[in-house]
Amino acid sequence: MGKPHIVILGAGYGGIMTAVKLEKMLSGQEATLTLVNKYDYHYQTTWLHENAAGTLHHDRSRIPIKDIMNMQKTEFVLDTVVSIKPEEKKVKLENGELLYDILVIGLGFEATTFGTPGIEEHAFTIRNINSARLIKEHVEYNFAMYHHEDEKNPGRLNIVVGGGGLTGIQFLGELVNRIPELCEEYDIHKTMVRIINIERSPTVLSDFDKQLVEYAMNSLESRGVEFITDATLKECASDHVIYEKDGKRVEIPTYTTIWAAGVHANSIVEKSGFEHHQGSIKVSHDMRAPDYDDVFAIGDCAMIINRDTGEAYSPTAQIAIQASDTVANNIRALIQEESEELETFEPKLLGTVVSLGHTDAIGDILNNRKIFGWKAALMKKVIDNRYLLKLGGFNLLIRKSKFNIFN
Amino acid sequence: MGKPHIVILGAGYGGIMTAVKLEKMLSGQEATLTLVNKYDYHYQTTWLHENAAGTLHHDRSRIPIKDIMNMQKTEFVLDTVVSIKPEEKKVKLENGELLYDILVIGLGFEATTFGTPGIEEHAFTIRNINSARLIKEHVEYNFAMYHHEDEKNPGRLNIVVGGGGLTGIQFLGELVNRIPELCEEYDIHKTMVRIINIERSPTVLSDFDKQLVEYAMNSLESRGVEFITDATLKECASDHVIYEKDGKRVEIPTYTTIWAAGVHANSIVEKSGFEHHQGSIKVSHDMRAPDYDDVFAIGDCAMIINRDTGEAYSPTAQIAIQASDTVANNIRALIQEESEELETFEPKLLGTVVSLGHTDAIGDILNNRKIFGWKAALMKKVIDNRYLLKLGGFNLLIRKSKFNIFN
Repeated sequence: MGKPHIVILGAGYGGIMTAVKLEKMLSGQEATLTLVNKYDYHYQTTWLHENAAGTLHHDRSRIPIKDIMNMQKTEFVLDTVVSIKPEEKKVKLENGELLYDILVIGLGFEATTFGTPGIEEHAFTIRNINSARLIKEHVEYNFAMYHHEDEKNPGRLNIVVGGGGLTGIQFLGELVNRIPELCEEYDIHKTMVRIINIERSPTVLSDFDKQLVEYAMNSLESRGVEFITDATLKECASDHVIYEKDGKRVEIPTYTTIWAAGVHANSIVEKSGFEHHQGSIKVSHDMRAPDYDDVFAIGDCAMIINRDTGEAYSPTAQIAIQASDTVANNIRALIQEESEELETFEPKLLGTVVSLGHTDAIGDILNNRKIFGWKAALMKKVIDNRYLLKLGGFNLLIRKSKFNIFN
Repeated sequence: MGKPHIVILGAGYGGIMTAVKLEKMLSGQEATLTLVNKYDYHYQTTWLHENAAGTLHHDRSRIPIKDIMNMQKTEFVLDTVVSIKPEEKKVKLENGELLYDILVIGLGFEATTFGTPGIEEHAFTIRNINSARLIKEHVEYNFAMYHHEDEKNPGRLNIVVGGGGLTGIQFLGELVNRIPELCEEYDIHKTMVRIINIERSPTVLSDFDKQLVEYAMNSLESRGVEFITDATLKECASDHVIYEKDGKRVEIPTYTTIWAAGVHANSIVEKSGFEHHQGSIKVSHDMRAPDYDDVFAIGDCAMIINRDTGEAYSPTAQIAIQASDTVANNIRALIQEESEELETFEPKLLGTVVSLGHTDAIGDILNNRKIFGWKAALMKKVIDNRYLLKLGGFNLLIRKSKFNIFN
């Protein structure tokens, strides 16, 4: 092949980190690199719950692509992927198409609604900058509406979060920080506001250590969150939700339902005819699609199997960032034809820290160490800052860091 | 009569200024004073367009009643007036009733929709703190919605202001200051936003000097306002308005229609059986209702006739504040039985300054002097600050002034 063309779809954690590394690894003589993204910025998916709650401005969670990539070396295409035709080595975009020699699919996730009626139309999701800031505005709008209407409507002040996973819980943590400010802003008594979490399992954060979960639930409950566990959201409308618990259906008046109960890979993967499991590509040890030697998948689009247990790892930012090393190294190997054998990806799980607002968190970290409280909250900020350092060096850290000292 | 009970309804410009003066003029032995208001704060109606546009925080436009009145001397009742029964000297409130010996009606205004279909349900009005901050939130919400929806909806970015009077024009002036900030906040190109004013007459501010009006329209047009004059709003829906001009009906897609085309006195006046003209009480020279010796009216509820021309003065904050002197003096005279003859109210028109944003304005002031540009803008701020000084002295001026030097 002549000068190979590498196309990276998506500038999320996996895509942008792969692009940054390849830009450094390969000279312009060796390959051309194109990055395609729907927006002209990269955003921190794991910070979006803060933007949605209104505790962090959305501009803090995004970074212009041109501030990360070298636009002389990398071609940046601002467009939306419509489909991939791997047989033709072609990507269809809304405004054109691209031919590739090597493809990286990092197109992220979509919400899984499990067919629950009304979720698609009426619930909000914490999915991208646009959807996160809309939640912030929507909550404020309803608080403003409350005193404007002669007939007081409690549904304006009820916020229902469907799903007690990482996103849902972290969003609740921010919300309990934000609500007192909103109450002051709109002359509303704090006791009028209900924040309700509905979770299908007997407990939230069901993969987590029981003690830590108890700590988290206590912390959030003490600040006003109501947990309804063992309950299923059955229906969502513009002004209410219905859940079922113990065979009974209960209606909650609310204009604000946040659906945080599940995601799957971008449906383009499935539509483009890749062999998939629940929508994502079950990648081989070298992060390539099993049926296409020239296609890599990363992040939410890649299903990575734990070879000890045979089960899939949950896709996280941590794994996506680690995998970008393997993907970049393997692309270089293919191009420089250094070796037949590509590198194998093995996630190194460093644990998870779940934020519960600005000063509280729980963490299940290396060697089963459990941390909670302000130490865990600090750890969370350290993790967030380490990523910035990896992505854009010290300059980016200074501009976007979560330590006030840098602001 | 024993110790007379004075009841003041409404803490707008007229009501609160009357209350402040009476509190100083009369001792607790002479009379008891009750002030009734729907909110526990007084607000600056003439600043609301700034709160609505989002250029001034609504807390800057309001002052807690307890910071103005002496709560030991004056009874403050936080309640909404339902009706007045002047024959029984009784006021019905939502949560009780009050008997009075002397009544002051200062219940402000309501929007006049002229029966235009949909205005009541779908248009916003700049009427009080609640309605003003709702407009701010509504505009932001729609800007946030714009990029959230896959199908781009230009109606989200169109703002229609019905009426080119004082409120409409001053709101437009603030809006053109605010829109560039909103565009940056929500990643919207400035050229996508339309700000449209629809005015029934051949020109906006039709009572004003022609040269000044031309200046105002040029100033606003140069910053993006489209004026559609000689046009009538025919219909307002949640997602569009229809206006008629030259016999043709034109539809504009918009989610934000601000109705600023006319007001009338609080309809309680009419419902309570007072003799009224277009809803307000045509007060006699001493500010009393013609058919009740113990009832005063002030502000938007009072129609004051210019004895030179036989026409009614437009109710303004200026006139309400001036009238509070006469009302307070006359109430004192009635109580202290100083004289049979009550004072006559004669407005001293000092002219009007119309703000066109932070740094521009037009003014038609004393002796037909015309001012415009930054001088007029400064004059406007001086007027705003003088009121604060009158209402609450130097301490209030420092806290709420519009000069940055005090902030």
